[in-house]
Amino acid sequence: MKKVKVGIIGFGTVGSGVADCLLKNGDVIERRSGVRLELAKIADLDIKTDRGVKVAPGVLTTDADQLIKEVDVVVELVGGTTIAKEFILKALKAGKPVVTANKALLAEKGNELFAAAEKSKSDIYYEASVAGGIPIIKALREGLAGNRINKIYGILNGTCNYILTRMERENINFAPVLKEAQKLGYAEANPSLDVDGFDTAHKAAILASLAYGEWFGMKPIHVEGISNITLMDIKYASDLGYKIKLLAVIKQEKDDVQIRVHPALVPKKALLANINEVFNGVMVNGDYVGDALFYGRGAGRNATASAVVADLLDVGLNLQFGSHRRVPAFRIGPQYRKLTPMDNIKTRYYLRMEVKDNPGVVAKIATILGNKKINISSVIQHESPSKKSVPLIFLTDTAVEKSIKSAIAQIEKLSEVNQKVNLIRIEDI
Amino acid sequence: MKKVKVGIIGFGTVGSGVADCLLKNGDVIERRSGVRLELAKIADLDIKTDRGVKVAPGVLTTDADQLIKEVDVVVELVGGTTIAKEFILKALKAGKPVVTANKALLAEKGNELFAAAEKSKSDIYYEASVAGGIPIIKALREGLAGNRINKIYGILNGTCNYILTRMERENINFAPVLKEAQKLGYAEANPSLDVDGFDTAHKAAILASLAYGEWFGMKPIHVEGISNITLMDIKYASDLGYKIKLLAVIKQEKDDVQIRVHPALVPKKALLANINEVFNGVMVNGDYVGDALFYGRGAGRNATASAVVADLLDVGLNLQFGSHRRVPAFRIGPQYRKLTPMDNIKTRYYLRMEVKDNPGVVAKIATILGNKKINISSVIQHESPSKKSVPLIFLTDTAVEKSIKSAIAQIEKLSEVNQKVNLIRIEDI
Repeated sequence: MKKVKVGIIGFGTVGSGVADCLLKNGDVIERRSGVRLELAKIADLDIKTDRGVKVAPGVLTTDADQLIKEVDVVVELVGGTTIAKEFILKALKAGKPVVTANKALLAEKGNELFAAAEKSKSDIYYEASVAGGIPIIKALREGLAGNRINKIYGILNGTCNYILTRMERENINFAPVLKEAQKLGYAEANPSLDVDGFDTAHKAAILASLAYGEWFGMKPIHVEGISNITLMDIKYASDLGYKIKLLAVIKQEKDDVQIRVHPALVPKKALLANINEVFNGVMVNGDYVGDALFYGRGAGRNATASAVVADLLDVGLNLQFGSHRRVPAFRIGPQYRKLTPMDNIKTRYYLRMEVKDNPGVVAKIATILGNKKINISSVIQHESPSKKSVPLIFLTDTAVEKSIKSAIAQIEKLSEVNQKVNLIRIEDI
Repeated sequence: MKKVKVGIIGFGTVGSGVADCLLKNGDVIERRSGVRLELAKIADLDIKTDRGVKVAPGVLTTDADQLIKEVDVVVELVGGTTIAKEFILKALKAGKPVVTANKALLAEKGNELFAAAEKSKSDIYYEASVAGGIPIIKALREGLAGNRINKIYGILNGTCNYILTRMERENINFAPVLKEAQKLGYAEANPSLDVDGFDTAHKAAILASLAYGEWFGMKPIHVEGISNITLMDIKYASDLGYKIKLLAVIKQEKDDVQIRVHPALVPKKALLANINEVFNGVMVNGDYVGDALFYGRGAGRNATASAVVADLLDVGLNLQFGSHRRVPAFRIGPQYRKLTPMDNIKTRYYLRMEVKDNPGVVAKIATILGNKKINISSVIQHESPSKKSVPLIFLTDTAVEKSIKSAIAQIEKLSEVNQKVNLIRIEDI
């Protein structure tokens, strides 16, 4: 029976969850796999604060370098893209496999880390970097490996999904819900990483890379957040049969791939539309499997620990069987032609504008859209108590992004249009 | 680069799907994994019929024994529990790893097959045996391996789910929907395996075994099918906020495990209630991951092929890395105390009965339930045009199965009760 000495760098929320899981479920894991994952060391600058996990004497240390020397596998849970990277590179250089949940670091510097892992003939596993406890990385790399991936739709950020769910259910605007989410610990003091879509984009970059065989990084990803979504949009979307979700959209069309993160109208009857609160969901469409959906907690101490421990088991099995790099961290092998620039994507659109309630305004806007060959599939204009300004909503058929953008520029120049046009893409999942 | 010679025994629907997938996606699989899965041989008694897959000359054979000799891995897609078992045992004896989708054989004779695999130091993979293309076996054995499993709820039979979905949506009774499902090829001429719950039970046996470390077989499973579900039940359930699904319920309570297959009322807002038509869904609750749900096509040529090919990749990697039995077919290691007899399970119940519309009948029935310490949470009795007989529906709070059964026996003896009581369990997922 092989014992695998696990060292955790970073004794924060997730670190304490991993320690707790290893201590509580080590016996089950061993019975299931034949591998004993032993919590050998935990390094943190603060080893005084009680994290609610009772570790054996000598496990806690402030010396991460010593930890790397002593253990069989290093779990990086420091976060950030500087010191975390140093720890990972040091571990790999020492020939120690690494498990990490660090999506930002992977998305931005994955290539560098993977090269280091290859050089040292070692492994990096990162199941916890996307969608928390959901084993979606393993699914893409192994369980669905026989498929060409047509599409991936992901709800990948619990904070945004929580905010959108509460706005919809309780009829509250974005700003007050965000404030409450911050109070409850569901949103950071500086919420930009979440609400502006960057966290989702980090995860989208990882999923897209696994699906299409090139480590894309953040550059090719179009990113929009949810801060422009109003209660009015949520209500109109609902009237039209849709919910609004922050989506990662990864799509192959005619061999070209698009990667984008933005709010989207999703048909209410789609399973993805019914993923609420802090939960995550990933819908993968493969050419053989068809639609497959994976759902679960996308963050939090225990769910993330579940994913880290699954990776530790893979590392443990590799150590036991000498099968390092059996499924390497990343294997380059592009399966697409080129990236589609955002201007060239085709989808349906929801456009909301505030217009003066003059006769002929709908006709003027419809003419602009028509001239760009954009078909209108629905229009909503309700009677308004104030006759100064009424909301006007168009849903379009499939159109090219640059045509929509240029139509919007013309529409916004009309004297009858009071504000900027709010554009939300529609994904008919 | 390692070439893995794949031999398929059984060139039916799934066999042709696997051949097709290997031919079309072999290049992608190789770029992703470094493993070349080569379609080397296909054995079938009928090698004349065109299956729509163009294989190279010499691939087709009627000689399965010769196939076993020539290939690196044997895919058993013959089905049934007799000849299929012989082929698998022959392959293992020859030291060849096996991939199979044969849930009936696994559920009933798994122990025998696993012993043979252990003896020959070889592998059996069976992802396709449960929930078609959904990588749920890999999830339970690897992706969620850090968890103690609290519960698994599964919609595991596409035929039943299709029938229940159409009954609900189109207001048609069981018998005519079944007839149409048979016409469309969604149900077999002899539908018993599906509609009586046995296919679901085979899959439940496999999931429960993986979750709790003992190969249970079919014996401990309580099995009921959907043929007693009436349109009336579906409507009343809907009025009460539920849908009716054929569920596999695998639950650990106080270290004891229960495995049962029966129709159940599921709250409409639960994701599982929204899994419709031929789709499958498996909800796993683990002590760290919390709720995780896996959704996809549970059957069919291509989805099943996706799962078989994923297994072939695992076999291929094992051959390349010499890591046979890295995750063996099954590892005994019980993680429960004992099986809960059906009489002792506790859940909520839906009871529908036809009663004479006499004064006092509700009171009589309520008294019987009360005497058994069964709390009533809802009663529905609508006015009836015919005063001879009215339907009466009770929902109960959590009660013990044997108390409910004995209450029903008493209720059925009442002169005011015209028919047998229809009992459906409620699962508040």
